[in-house]
Amino acid sequence: MLSKVKVDLNDYSYNIIISNSFIHSSFDFIRPFLKRNKVALITDENVERFHLDHFRNSLKANGIDVFSLSVSPGEISKDWNTLKRVVDWMLEVKLERDDLILAFGGGVIGDLVGFASSIVRRGIDYIQIPTSLLAQVDSSVGGKTGINSKYGKNLVGNFFHPKLVLIDVNFLNTLSHRHFLSGLGEVVKYGLLKRYSFFEWLEKNGQEILKGDIQKIIYLVTISCEIKAEIVSRDEKEKGERALLNLGHTFGHSLEAGTGYSDQLLHGEGVSIGCCLAFDLSYKLGLCSQEEPSRVRAFMKSMNMKTDISQISGKVPATDRLIELMKQDKKVKSGNLRFILPRSIGKTFIAEDVELRDVSDVINESR
Amino acid sequence: MLSKVKVDLNDYSYNIIISNSFIHSSFDFIRPFLKRNKVALITDENVERFHLDHFRNSLKANGIDVFSLSVSPGEISKDWNTLKRVVDWMLEVKLERDDLILAFGGGVIGDLVGFASSIVRRGIDYIQIPTSLLAQVDSSVGGKTGINSKYGKNLVGNFFHPKLVLIDVNFLNTLSHRHFLSGLGEVVKYGLLKRYSFFEWLEKNGQEILKGDIQKIIYLVTISCEIKAEIVSRDEKEKGERALLNLGHTFGHSLEAGTGYSDQLLHGEGVSIGCCLAFDLSYKLGLCSQEEPSRVRAFMKSMNMKTDISQISGKVPATDRLIELMKQDKKVKSGNLRFILPRSIGKTFIAEDVELRDVSDVINESR
Repeated sequence: MLSKVKVDLNDYSYNIIISNSFIHSSFDFIRPFLKRNKVALITDENVERFHLDHFRNSLKANGIDVFSLSVSPGEISKDWNTLKRVVDWMLEVKLERDDLILAFGGGVIGDLVGFASSIVRRGIDYIQIPTSLLAQVDSSVGGKTGINSKYGKNLVGNFFHPKLVLIDVNFLNTLSHRHFLSGLGEVVKYGLLKRYSFFEWLEKNGQEILKGDIQKIIYLVTISCEIKAEIVSRDEKEKGERALLNLGHTFGHSLEAGTGYSDQLLHGEGVSIGCCLAFDLSYKLGLCSQEEPSRVRAFMKSMNMKTDISQISGKVPATDRLIELMKQDKKVKSGNLRFILPRSIGKTFIAEDVELRDVSDVINESR
Repeated sequence: MLSKVKVDLNDYSYNIIISNSFIHSSFDFIRPFLKRNKVALITDENVERFHLDHFRNSLKANGIDVFSLSVSPGEISKDWNTLKRVVDWMLEVKLERDDLILAFGGGVIGDLVGFASSIVRRGIDYIQIPTSLLAQVDSSVGGKTGINSKYGKNLVGNFFHPKLVLIDVNFLNTLSHRHFLSGLGEVVKYGLLKRYSFFEWLEKNGQEILKGDIQKIIYLVTISCEIKAEIVSRDEKEKGERALLNLGHTFGHSLEAGTGYSDQLLHGEGVSIGCCLAFDLSYKLGLCSQEEPSRVRAFMKSMNMKTDISQISGKVPATDRLIELMKQDKKVKSGNLRFILPRSIGKTFIAEDVELRDVSDVINESR
């Protein structure tokens, strides 16, 4: 089974190909972008251990040399030092403007390598080969690249679109269950933000997804990519509609920052909690009925996903500190707090000027 | 007197305004891009000393607060550490996506600040206010931004166009004569690469330019910007024609790298020497007549510009090492050395596959 989603961006358009057998046939898809018989690949040490040899051999069998660099796994690698290390490596192995780079890993690798590719010799083509669910349904699509700063997450980076996104859902077999559930945070978000029918489908098929039904997983990745591609095509640089993709992210990012971007809270966990809090906030402001947050929480709980701050193990900063962190978030406009809020499941809008007291209340109720 | 050149890039089009009285009237031009009553300015310590107070006061008189950061002057600031320092400062002063940044200084400031602006929160609008001749006629126009790497000059960066370029030729009064002559290296290059009539005009007006004739300097800046804008409009990302702007730069960059990007050789000096060597190489390959390099050298000598490696004071690396440095230059294609070569003054083309032995000979003759 193979499905395809096009991200329509005029000169920068590209395809997302989703299947469950790429590790052996990736050459056929990469070939149109190769101008010589070598390719640079950047991955992390975990992905290297599980997948690199297979992948390298499958390209080697087609006459392509893969030279690779592995960085430490985890958010810690989205920093200035690792960026410089990756960029220096690309220059050291003499990558030229018409070379090709493969970003092979989860969201950290995609963001880091996409950013490095964009700034080496002012831009070298790259292909995303995302291996985590989070990266497959979200970060590999849309061209946002970057690293974290001590002032906040993803504050340093730019827009740089890949030439292709190659998704093999079989990579998810080596993902921990916790990381799979984290990725589902972004998947559910798509249903919540603009497609009620997809949320309904998730409710209906949730248990089979948890059991690893390949067809259903390909379907959920495809629909997630399709929703993201539609939005990105209409608003590449986030002047308007693209901000909707941040449903749950203002809460989520502040929780991630407050827990040091550590294993204490994964990105998608922050998003699923953030989505629940966005529904709570919306209900508190009289913008949606009480049934909406209840139904979202009920579904997420049935999937064993995180829905509240109280489920974060370890210390979480005080509510005031979380709000301080939100203000430093890059989606702040003219100093006012901005949230994506639902009117109902599948219908969201951008709310400016949300009162800090209401945000505090919602956080406090979730602790 | 005021002249205007448009850089035509569809959504990213912008104007270059050239005059001799901006320091007092810049607000009128900046106003359309200001969304609040504060603006961030990055400069270097030299420009700060000479011009910052005047500039700040002229904006203050119009109700605009300028908050500023000054970095060390010189090529040394185009490095990772200074980039990070500038980016951190932008985040520390809480610049948001709709803020405005002013890059106030020479080419180093333009390249560094343009790059930092492009990667903070994935891009904040900026205006170039170039204060050196080199920056006014070259680096402030065309959207190339970046820093140097230990592997070579400008190897890390991207394309990010300013919203406006504001040029006041009065800033040149505080430029050293040596830096002025260095800037002329890029000016002469424009005539050499595609406008014979401009080279003729320079020959005729050279001595008055050296005496500081304001009208003629505004004219030469305007024509230089016009030629660059034309080329950049047709080939923003340097897929073809834009490479012509690198006339003299393959030689120049290797000499700069070989002398450590120090005061031993200024960028424009490297370019003027490089242009002479490109003409020598072209003659050696039988592509132009002997009169062409002679005429170029004669004019440059009459202006007291550098024309040969022998004029570089201090140690210059061996010829083999210079060629090694050229190979690391980002304009290498598939490992072959690529040069911009003249057929005559005002007519140039891209030559692939130039023999290394011929390049060596030309360098050796110039030592």
